[in-house]
Amino acid sequence: MLLLLLHRAVAPGLRQACRLKSTHSRLCIQACSTNDSSQHQCPSLAFSTENSSTRGWRVMGTLLGLGAVLAYHDHRCRAAQKSPHIYTREEVKSHSSPETRIWVTLGSEVFDVTDFVDLHPGGPSKLMLAAGGPLEPFWALYAVHSQSHVREILAQYKIGELSPEDKLPPTLKTSDPYANDPVRHPALKVNSQRPFNAEPPPELLTETYITPNPIFFTRNHLPVPNLDPDTYRLHIVGPPGRKPLSLSLDDLHQFPKHEITVTLQCAGNRRSEMSQLKEVRGLEWRTGAISTARWAGARLCDVLAKAGHQLRATEAHVCFEGLDSDPTGTAYGASIPLARAMDPEAEVLLAYEMNGQPLPRDHGFPVRVVVPGVVGARHVKWLGKVSVEPEESHSHWQRRDYKGFCPSVDWDSVDFDSSPSIQELPVQSAITEPKEGEMVEAGEVTVKGYAWSGGGRAVIRVDVSLDGGLTWQVAELDREEQRPRKAWAWRLWQLQAPVPPGKKELNIVCKAVDDSYNVQPDTVGPIWNLRGVLSNAWHRVHVRVAS
Amino acid sequence: MLLLLLHRAVAPGLRQACRLKSTHSRLCIQACSTNDSSQHQCPSLAFSTENSSTRGWRVMGTLLGLGAVLAYHDHRCRAAQKSPHIYTREEVKSHSSPETRIWVTLGSEVFDVTDFVDLHPGGPSKLMLAAGGPLEPFWALYAVHSQSHVREILAQYKIGELSPEDKLPPTLKTSDPYANDPVRHPALKVNSQRPFNAEPPPELLTETYITPNPIFFTRNHLPVPNLDPDTYRLHIVGPPGRKPLSLSLDDLHQFPKHEITVTLQCAGNRRSEMSQLKEVRGLEWRTGAISTARWAGARLCDVLAKAGHQLRATEAHVCFEGLDSDPTGTAYGASIPLARAMDPEAEVLLAYEMNGQPLPRDHGFPVRVVVPGVVGARHVKWLGKVSVEPEESHSHWQRRDYKGFCPSVDWDSVDFDSSPSIQELPVQSAITEPKEGEMVEAGEVTVKGYAWSGGGRAVIRVDVSLDGGLTWQVAELDREEQRPRKAWAWRLWQLQAPVPPGKKELNIVCKAVDDSYNVQPDTVGPIWNLRGVLSNAWHRVHVRVAS
Repeated sequence: MLLLLLHRAVAPGLRQACRLKSTHSRLCIQACSTNDSSQHQCPSLAFSTENSSTRGWRVMGTLLGLGAVLAYHDHRCRAAQKSPHIYTREEVKSHSSPETRIWVTLGSEVFDVTDFVDLHPGGPSKLMLAAGGPLEPFWALYAVHSQSHVREILAQYKIGELSPEDKLPPTLKTSDPYANDPVRHPALKVNSQRPFNAEPPPELLTETYITPNPIFFTRNHLPVPNLDPDTYRLHIVGPPGRKPLSLSLDDLHQFPKHEITVTLQCAGNRRSEMSQLKEVRGLEWRTGAISTARWAGARLCDVLAKAGHQLRATEAHVCFEGLDSDPTGTAYGASIPLARAMDPEAEVLLAYEMNGQPLPRDHGFPVRVVVPGVVGARHVKWLGKVSVEPEESHSHWQRRDYKGFCPSVDWDSVDFDSSPSIQELPVQSAITEPKEGEMVEAGEVTVKGYAWSGGGRAVIRVDVSLDGGLTWQVAELDREEQRPRKAWAWRLWQLQAPVPPGKKELNIVCKAVDDSYNVQPDTVGPIWNLRGVLSNAWHRVHVRVAS
Repeated sequence: MLLLLLHRAVAPGLRQACRLKSTHSRLCIQACSTNDSSQHQCPSLAFSTENSSTRGWRVMGTLLGLGAVLAYHDHRCRAAQKSPHIYTREEVKSHSSPETRIWVTLGSEVFDVTDFVDLHPGGPSKLMLAAGGPLEPFWALYAVHSQSHVREILAQYKIGELSPEDKLPPTLKTSDPYANDPVRHPALKVNSQRPFNAEPPPELLTETYITPNPIFFTRNHLPVPNLDPDTYRLHIVGPPGRKPLSLSLDDLHQFPKHEITVTLQCAGNRRSEMSQLKEVRGLEWRTGAISTARWAGARLCDVLAKAGHQLRATEAHVCFEGLDSDPTGTAYGASIPLARAMDPEAEVLLAYEMNGQPLPRDHGFPVRVVVPGVVGARHVKWLGKVSVEPEESHSHWQRRDYKGFCPSVDWDSVDFDSSPSIQELPVQSAITEPKEGEMVEAGEVTVKGYAWSGGGRAVIRVDVSLDGGLTWQVAELDREEQRPRKAWAWRLWQLQAPVPPGKKELNIVCKAVDDSYNVQPDTVGPIWNLRGVLSNAWHRVHVRVAS
């Protein structure tokens, strides 16, 4: 009987996972507020069947990894029959922990899911991400929820309805330069609201090989411009004696469409580990300032060639200017070497699609630069202008930011001209599961994470240690294609290993090796720098073992 | 009077150094036994005025760095007038330390230079390299010795003559497959005689930016073949349907001559630090399995194109076969990806010149491959055959050697197919001065070394610590040109820093950063591997401070 119940609860999810695997379907999330300025959209859901796949085995792992689904049926008969009651969003929000009880909303209905959290097939931590708020943004991320039996289960926990005025999200003050920013996914961990900077939580980050658009990490330097795709023009400055190009979005679509999977990482990813050591200037990114998408657009080399540009014997740089700007009118800007821009093998894109959808506003609608293997800061969003110059961009972000220094250099002594601007990033990896301070079961532990390296260098190995780095085991890497010299996207990895008997705690460490056999440094102190960039020491997570 | 004497002793050297600096002359050493099979040649000396320069300031530093030259003249009047005596080479060899007294030879003359060692303008350690043997190979490295006053000084220390039979070096047994190997420079630290593997001592390694041919590190896997340049042929297998090319040395000279400065490093450089931790299989290289030369030859891409080869859509490899072989007839072999071979920007050479001279026999006479930015093992020497294949070379050295593994992998568990063959090497640096265990003066310490990275990535910074890695200072890098994306050669660096007062010892550490901001790992344990390759942890030298 128990087995039958287990089958009823888990089997549909399993079938869903298998379908995902066998058809290589891909979960594509259309973000809130992708293409227009409406602030009141909600995430919607779409499947496509393109090549880049949500790895079925990972979804299966999530579904199977929890044994606590046996009691589903009991609970289906309990919570019902209470008389409906009206709650405000504020009231719902205050119920977000086991102590206060855990409430969520779906549409206008309010549910108390406290007793269901431990039974959630995707794991308690995933459901807790929605505690005190709406379920829709999270259900949109995981297709398994779009089944009638899931709604049936939830119905058992209904406790009332939202008050009529709370059925619409609150409006923003229009005097605020950020008032026109898009609505964001509630799962994002916000490091700064204005400008908006946020990262997905670790438990979602490596749930899928392709990061769904709504939880792709967002690094904005300025308010998000609200651009009209019909009047948008991209200006390509020509070489001396040639007219500039002024390209509409339609014009850009006339170039051959090129599609690649690329991981973007902010130079400040894992900065919080540096600031724990000594203060740095910058946002407190944890391990989530990195994400992976399938990008499509015109190749920059094709567009530059059309404008009349060629490779030059002397070093030159392609400068990008965004249409985002500060109150003085200064736009975001950055540059990359012309040699990279003109190399078809480097696959630099003027991207207009992200995971099969038009770019979300937070990610540069309608056009952004994608420079595979290079630091996020050069992937200029809301692209307005491209020019070829003998020198790097004079932008603050090219010349006075995003550079590495010796740990002894401080703000009194720093000479920004003495360091090259960051382009290719060094090898990186991090643990996303388990989390710092978590209690893990004795017996066997599963460690998961990501690894990536700049410049198209493939990650060839990830070593994991459970004893702080004394002994190491080789993690299993995903089987996504790694093109030689063009390994632009991360590798997800996992290790299932016995917990050494008698251990009360584990110091879990990971380190990656790329195909130039570069490795991560052991500790963060000797790579500390005043801007807290390039934080790629071994990632360490300390957990306790349940006895 | 003292000053005048000082001037007499030092000034010619200074003038020499200044001339070197101002004319960008380059010291070119013609190695013993370069082009023919004679075993009894001696190093000779030649200047050229090509661009790649011995850095004048470094030579000057050597000459000025020692204050102990004041007493020259006194000694010029002492040792003379002893009655000539006849000594064997064996007797001379037994006098190689202050305890036994320090003898050297020049031509057939024997000198006791014990009292001169501390007065040597180039430093005592450099003269000690010749203790118990001939001076010629060392004088050939340093042009300052080719002045009459140097011979005058030496004459004061003459104690006798070599016995007539010892005026010629000993002959080798001809039954030995290595009997025909060339004579090597005595400064080389030999790790293995058969096959011959040797490295320059640290104090000579970074004395000049370009490593003189006779002390360039030598990594042979087999006996050195003795090839006749007149009958030599290089076979280039053509694509299907095309005839192979059979190129004479003259034919190869018909291709455009391409010249570049490239650092070569053995994958096993610094292996001795790994084997101190746990046994590894391989030669005990210290920090000297790395050297830099100016190479000239035909570009591989030009030769492959001439044979009819093109870049392919699918991955392919260029396989090289040497003319060195073991008793079963198996030749040394290796391969590199076709994409690198066909890329003119990768500058892969079929080199026939090394520092302006035909290749020395130990370095591949008459033709070797030079693959900038790639591990030494792929720079196949005594090149006999080139072919384009769908797979990597099946050679032992490509598939069952020169690969990296997790520290937990041992000979029982190793699966060579699970790791990619080493191509580009990771960022590297090492200290060449002071030496481990040395006593340094209180006041100020000078630390010198080299830094390099694979794949054309430039070294952008070297950090040096005097306290084991707690605090860091930025070293001064040489000013040799660094071409973007083609920084194939090392950077020499130095740091002059005050010795913290009261310190009895220093734990000197260096670490380099390349332009992808990759760094060296802190410690060797976590990168240990069963073959002891890729040893690029921070380099550490412990010294005592004179009180």
